[in-house]
Amino acid sequence: MAAISEDVLARNRHLLGPGEDYWLAQRISRGISRAPGDNWDHYGPNAIVDCVPLPLRERAKLFRDGIEIVTPALRRTPPDSLSPRAKMHQYLNLVLADREVKAQNPDAWAVLLDVNGNLSEGQGSNIFLVRDGRLVTPRERYVLPGISRQATIDLARELQIPFAEQDLDLYDAYTADECFLTSTSLCICGVRSLNGRSFAAGRVPGPITQKLVDAYRDMVGCDETPPVAAPQGEVILFVPSKT
Amino acid sequence: MAAISEDVLARNRHLLGPGEDYWLAQRISRGISRAPGDNWDHYGPNAIVDCVPLPLRERAKLFRDGIEIVTPALRRTPPDSLSPRAKMHQYLNLVLADREVKAQNPDAWAVLLDVNGNLSEGQGSNIFLVRDGRLVTPRERYVLPGISRQATIDLARELQIPFAEQDLDLYDAYTADECFLTSTSLCICGVRSLNGRSFAAGRVPGPITQKLVDAYRDMVGCDETPPVAAPQGEVILFVPSKT
Amino acid sequence: MAAISEDVLARNRHLLGPGEDYWLAQRISRGISRAPGDNWDHYGPNAIVDCVPLPLRERAKLFRDGIEIVTPALRRTPPDSLSPRAKMHQYLNLVLADREVKAQNPDAWAVLLDVNGNLSEGQGSNIFLVRDGRLVTPRERYVLPGISRQATIDLARELQIPFAEQDLDLYDAYTADECFLTSTSLCICGVRSLNGRSFAAGRVPGPITQKLVDAYRDMVGCDETPPVAAPQGEVILFVPSKT
Amino acid sequence: MAAISEDVLARNRHLLGPGEDYWLAQRISRGISRAPGDNWDHYGPNAIVDCVPLPLRERAKLFRDGIEIVTPALRRTPPDSLSPRAKMHQYLNLVLADREVKAQNPDAWAVLLDVNGNLSEGQGSNIFLVRDGRLVTPRERYVLPGISRQATIDLARELQIPFAEQDLDLYDAYTADECFLTSTSLCICGVRSLNGRSFAAGRVPGPITQKLVDAYRDMVGCDETPPVAAPQGEVILFVPSKT
Amino acid sequence: MAAISEDVLARNRHLLGPGEDYWLAQRISRGISRAPGDNWDHYGPNAIVDCVPLPLRERAKLFRDGIEIVTPALRRTPPDSLSPRAKMHQYLNLVLADREVKAQNPDAWAVLLDVNGNLSEGQGSNIFLVRDGRLVTPRERYVLPGISRQATIDLARELQIPFAEQDLDLYDAYTADECFLTSTSLCICGVRSLNGRSFAAGRVPGPITQKLVDAYRDMVGCDETPPVAAPQGEVILFVPSKT
Amino acid sequence: MAAISEDVLARNRHLLGPGEDYWLAQRISRGISRAPGDNWDHYGPNAIVDCVPLPLRERAKLFRDGIEIVTPALRRTPPDSLSPRAKMHQYLNLVLADREVKAQNPDAWAVLLDVNGNLSEGQGSNIFLVRDGRLVTPRERYVLPGISRQATIDLARELQIPFAEQDLDLYDAYTADECFLTSTSLCICGVRSLNGRSFAAGRVPGPITQKLVDAYRDMVGCDETPPVAAPQGEVILFVPSKT
Repeated sequence: MAAISEDVLARNRHLLGPGEDYWLAQRISRGISRAPGDNWDHYGPNAIVDCVPLPLRERAKLFRDGIEIVTPALRRTPPDSLSPRAKMHQYLNLVLADREVKAQNPDAWAVLLDVNGNLSEGQGSNIFLVRDGRLVTPRERYVLPGISRQATIDLARELQIPFAEQDLDLYDAYTADECFLTSTSLCICGVRSLNGRSFAAGRVPGPITQKLVDAYRDMVGCDETPPVAAPQGEVILFVPSKT
Repeated sequence: MAAISEDVLARNRHLLGPGEDYWLAQRISRGISRAPGDNWDHYGPNAIVDCVPLPLRERAKLFRDGIEIVTPALRRTPPDSLSPRAKMHQYLNLVLADREVKAQNPDAWAVLLDVNGNLSEGQGSNIFLVRDGRLVTPRERYVLPGISRQATIDLARELQIPFAEQDLDLYDAYTADECFLTSTSLCICGVRSLNGRSFAAGRVPGPITQKLVDAYRDMVGCDETPPVAAPQGEVILFVPSKT
Repeated sequence: MAAISEDVLARNRHLLGPGEDYWLAQRISRGISRAPGDNWDHYGPNAIVDCVPLPLRERAKLFRDGIEIVTPALRRTPPDSLSPRAKMHQYLNLVLADREVKAQNPDAWAVLLDVNGNLSEGQGSNIFLVRDGRLVTPRERYVLPGISRQATIDLARELQIPFAEQDLDLYDAYTADECFLTSTSLCICGVRSLNGRSFAAGRVPGPITQKLVDAYRDMVGCDETPPVAAPQGEVILFVPSKT
Repeated sequence: MAAISEDVLARNRHLLGPGEDYWLAQRISRGISRAPGDNWDHYGPNAIVDCVPLPLRERAKLFRDGIEIVTPALRRTPPDSLSPRAKMHQYLNLVLADREVKAQNPDAWAVLLDVNGNLSEGQGSNIFLVRDGRLVTPRERYVLPGISRQATIDLARELQIPFAEQDLDLYDAYTADECFLTSTSLCICGVRSLNGRSFAAGRVPGPITQKLVDAYRDMVGCDETPPVAAPQGEVILFVPSKT
Repeated sequence: MAAISEDVLARNRHLLGPGEDYWLAQRISRGISRAPGDNWDHYGPNAIVDCVPLPLRERAKLFRDGIEIVTPALRRTPPDSLSPRAKMHQYLNLVLADREVKAQNPDAWAVLLDVNGNLSEGQGSNIFLVRDGRLVTPRERYVLPGISRQATIDLARELQIPFAEQDLDLYDAYTADECFLTSTSLCICGVRSLNGRSFAAGRVPGPITQKLVDAYRDMVGCDETPPVAAPQGEVILFVPSKT
Repeated sequence: MAAISEDVLARNRHLLGPGEDYWLAQRISRGISRAPGDNWDHYGPNAIVDCVPLPLRERAKLFRDGIEIVTPALRRTPPDSLSPRAKMHQYLNLVLADREVKAQNPDAWAVLLDVNGNLSEGQGSNIFLVRDGRLVTPRERYVLPGISRQATIDLARELQIPFAEQDLDLYDAYTADECFLTSTSLCICGVRSLNGRSFAAGRVPGPITQKLVDAYRDMVGCDETPPVAAPQGEVILFVPSKT
C-alpha cells in the first residue's frame, strides 16, 4: 500500500504548484459477494489511492478570522444505527448537515449535535472548547476520534493544559472562552462564532488555542500561510487489491 | 373582560394611523400564593390588557415574496416537560430558536422540529404543506392549535381540499408542492423556501395556498395590503382582575 | 437517460443466458464542488448506468420455503439523521444489519426496527403483515416506500383487501397470520419465520399473500420459476452526464 | 446595579420585622425589538429590582423534620429545548411539576427527573445524596448549578468529604444513606423521604448532612431558627436600565 | 382447562358469602428447560388455577365518588424491552408505579405515562377520555388491550358514540370532559380527578360514561352495588398441565 | 435465614453426585396486601429457599472454547421503568432476549444493549472488555452489579490492571482485544465472539482474562473442570417467613 501510494504521488507531483500540498487518500472496499454461477476475476477488497490538492488558499481566511460554526437541525447518526467512530465513505448525514448550514451562510461550517443534544463533530473535523483554562472535547461515542484530535490532546498534555473528554452542550459552548476545530487539512483552526455568538470578544484564536497552534506547527510543520499557485489537476489511480 | 378590552382600545385608538390595526392581548396570571403573615390587597389572578400596532408594513414583503423558513438545532419543548398546546407567555424555547435562525439570515423565520424530528411550529405560527393536492399539518401534540390554523382547516373543508393532521418530517417538506404559515397577524402567508430549498419552482403562493388565502380574506376581511402610516405609540393598562 | 440505459442493455445482452433477467441501475452523483483555481472538465452530476443479472436461482428456495427474517440489534437510521425515504447509495446501516444477522444464520434476512422499536425495512425490501384479514405495513417515515410496495398496496385495493399503513412492533409481527416481503427483485415473497417464530403453522405463502402474489404475477409478468442458465458477466458503463 | 439594589432595600427596610430577612432579586429583560416606525423612549434591556421577605417561618418545620420529596411525572425540560443551566424567569415546567406533587401532598416538594430518568432539580433547589460516605449530586447538564450548590461542594472539599457530580437515578436515591436540598433561602436542608421512602431510619439530617449544615452556618451566618415577627409588605421598584 | 377451572370453583364455593363473586385466574408457565443429566418428572408448561374473592366492598366508594388517578414518575415499560400487550405475570413496573402513587395518596390509582409522555394504562386497567362527545383511549402499543376495554369499544359503537384509539397526553386529559377506567373487576368506573384536577365540575360519572356503564351492566350483569358479606378464604390448587 | 438455608442443603445433599455443586437461592416476596374482611394466617413477606445443581458439565465447553455472544433486538428495560440494578425475579425481558438469540444459534448467549445503544448485561451475567491493556465494564445504571463483577473489579485492582466503568457500545466491543463474562455460576469465562466477530484472533481466554481467571480461582476455589456425575433431583422447601 505504501509503495502504491508513493507511486500515485510520483505520477501526480508535476501537477502541483510551488508550495502546494496533496491530500493522499487510500480507500478500501469490502469487495463483491460471491454468488453461485458468476465469474468475476477478482472478489476480494479493492483499494483506491488518489491525491487531491489541499484547498489551502480558501482556508487562509479561516486561519485569519476564525471559522463560523452553525449547528444544523440534523442530528449526528446515532451509534446504534451506524457508529460515527468508524472511518468510512458514507458521509451523507454530514454532507446534508453542511449544506443545510451553508444554504443560510455559505461561509459557515456545520458542527452537528448528537441525539442527546450534545456537540458531536463536523464533516472531517473535531471541536474543542476552552472553559476556565480547561480544554474539553466531546467523548468518542458520537465522533470519529481523528488523528489531529489525538495530536491536540497529546500536545495539551505536554503543555500541561488540563484536559477532559466529556458531554458538551450548547450552553457549554455559548459560555466557553475559546473554541477551535481540528482536522487533517486544518490542523488546528480557531472558531470565531457559534450560531452567531462570538467567543471571548471575537479575539481569534484565543490564547490557549494559540499555544496549541504553535505547538502543532512545531510538531508537524503544518504551515498556515496560504499557497500562491493554483492546483491544476488530479489523477485517480484504480488499484485492484491483492486478496 | 370584553368591556375592559374595549376601554383599552378606545383610550389608544387616537394613536393609530389610517389603515392601521391593533393587536389586542389579554394576559392572565395565576396570582400570588397566599403565605401566612403576609398582607397583600389582592391574591387572585391578574389580567393585563394591552394593544400593539400590527407590524403590517414589514409583512408586505413576506406576502409578496414568501417567507424563508429555517429549522434550527433547538427542538420544540416536549409535552411531558411543558405542553406546546397550552397558550402561555413562556416563549423562550421559541424565541431562542428564532434568534438562532436570524443570526444566520435576519429574514428567516424559525419552524422547530419536535424531539422526534417532525415539524412542529414557529413562534405564534403553524405550518401547512400541500402534497399531491392534499393539505397536511402537524398533529396537535407538539403545536399550539392556533385560531388561524383552525380557520384554515375549516376553509379547506369548505373548499373540499383533502386534509389531514399527521407527522411530517423534513423529507415531507422538501418534497412538498406548496407550504404556508398561519398566524393571527399573518392570516395565511406563503413560504418561499425551507432550509434554502424552494417550493414548486419558487412560485409563491402556490395555487392551493392562493385559494385558501382568497377564502380567508373573504371570511375575515384580513387585507394583505400594507398600511402606509406609522404606528406612534402604545398604552398598557394594568387591570387587577376580580376574584 | 432512457437511450443510454437501452444502450447499456444492448451491449450486455449477449452475456445473458436463456431465461435470465438483468437488474438495470441508474446512479446519479451530485458532482464535484467547484473550488477556486481547479480546472476539471466536468462539474455537474455524473450518472452511472449498469446492469447485473438478477440472482433468481438463489431466490427459488426463498419462494418455495419462505424467507427467514431476523431483527438485528442495529436500528434503522432515524429521519432526523438521514431520511430512509430518500433513495441513495449509502446502505451501510442496512448492510451492517444484514451481516449481523447472517453471522448467526446465513439464510436469514435482516428487517430492522426503528428507534421506537417498530418494524421498518430490510436492505431493499419492505415488510407486510396480514392480521385478521387486514394487510398492514409500516408507515413511510422509517422506510423507503419502494415501487413493489406501492404496487402491492394498489393490488390490495383492487382485490378489496383492507389495508393500512401503521406502526407495527414485534408483538404485531409475532401474532400476525401471514408475513411477506416486497422488493424489485423478489416482487412478493412469503416469510416463513421472524426471529424463529413461524407464521400460521409454517404454511408459506399464506392465503392472502398467495392472492397478492398471483395478482402481482398477472400484472408484471414476474415469473418465480428460477432460471436454469448461469449469469456470465457484467459490463459497467460510466456515462458522464450533461450538465 | 449595586446602588439601585441598596436603594430598593433602604426604601423597604422599615417594613421588615425584627429578625426578618429580605430576598432581593434583580431581573433583567432583553428589551423591545426595534421595528421601523415605532417611537419608544427606551429599547435596551430593562432591570427590575425587588425585595420579598424570606418565608423563614414556614421553613422551620422543614429544618426540624426534613423535606418530603416527590418525583412528579413531568420531566425537566431537556437542554436541546431550553437549557436548565441558564438562570431565567420561565419556571413553568418547574411550577407545574410542583403543583402536580402538592395536589397529592401539600407538604411535598417536587424534584424532577430528566428525560433519561435521572434526578435533576426542584424549583430553585439542588439535590444531594450521601452514599457510603460519598457526597454526590447530579451533573450540571440538567440542573441550574446554584450558588448554594457550589458552596456546599466547596465545603465538602474543605471537610474532605469525597464528592462527585454524576448521573443519579431513583435506585441511587432509594438506597442512599442521606439526602438534602440546597437553595438560596434554605442554605442546606435535610430530606426526610423520597416518594415516601425514608432515608436512614428517618434520622434527619443525617451525620454528613449535619456536618455540612454546621460548616455552612459558620460560613454564611445562615441561621435556621425561624423568625418571630411576620412580614408586612413589599414594594416593587421598576427601574428602567441605562442602555 | 375448563373442567379444572370449574373444579377449583366447586371446591371453593362454600367459602363465598352471599352476593360475593370469585376472581378465577388461570396462570400458565413455560415449564423447565431440559438439561442433560436431569430427571424431572414433568418438563412441559404448568398451569395454576386459583380463585380470589373480588374486593367489591372497597370498590363501592370508587363507583360512588369516582377514582382519583395520579400519573407517577415511572414510565410504562417500552415495547422494545417487553411488550405491554402480552398478558403475563411480571407486573413489577406497574406495582412499583402504584406504590409510588399510594405513598402520597392511599386512595389514588396509578395510570402510567409511556416513554413518549402519553397516557398508557394502570395495573389491570385501561383509561378512556371523553372530549367534545368523542370517546378516545390510548392505542394498543403501550397498553394491554383488556377484555373490558374491548367490550366498552363495542358498546360505544352500538350506542353510536364516536370513538378513536389515539395518542393522548396530559393536556388531552386535563381538558377532557369525562374520564373512566375499565378492568375485569371494575367493568367501567368513573374517574373523579387526574393529578388533582377534577373532570367536568366533579360530576362522576359524566353523562357519556353513565350511558356506557348502563349498557355494560345490561350486557354482562355486572352489578355495582357492593356486597354485604365478607370474603372468608381462598384455596389455591396447583395443577400440573399435560404436555 | 442462614439456618433454614443450611437445612435445605442438608436435606438435599444426598442427591448430589461426587464433584457436584448446588446453586442455593433465597427468594423473598413482599407478601399479601391486607384487605378488609379477609382472614389469611400470614400477611408478611414469604421466603423460598431452594437448591439446584449447577449445570457445570454444559459449561465445560464454554470454558474451553469461549462463549458466543449475540446482541438481540430487544433492549434492556430502562431504569425509569424498572431498574436493572434491583435483584428480583422478573427476568422476562432477559429471558425473551435470550430466546431471540438462541432461536438463531442455540449455543449463543444474549447480552442486551440499553436504550442508548450501549452494552448492558445478559441474564445473570456481566460483560467486561479489555482494550489496550485496560479493563472496562458498563456502568451500573443499566446493569445489576453482580457479586462476581465486583470480585473481578477487586482482583483487577490487586493485579494493578487499569480499570474503569464506562459507556461501551458495539464499536468498543468489536475493536476490543479481549472479552469475558462474569456470573455466579461461571465465575469468569472468556468470550469467543460478539455477533460473529472473534476477539483477538480467536485466542480464548486472552492473556489479561487468563490472569483474572487464575486469580479468581485462587480466591474462591472455583474449579472450571467439569464434574462427571449427573445431577439427580431437587427439593424445593417453602418456608413461611416470620413477620
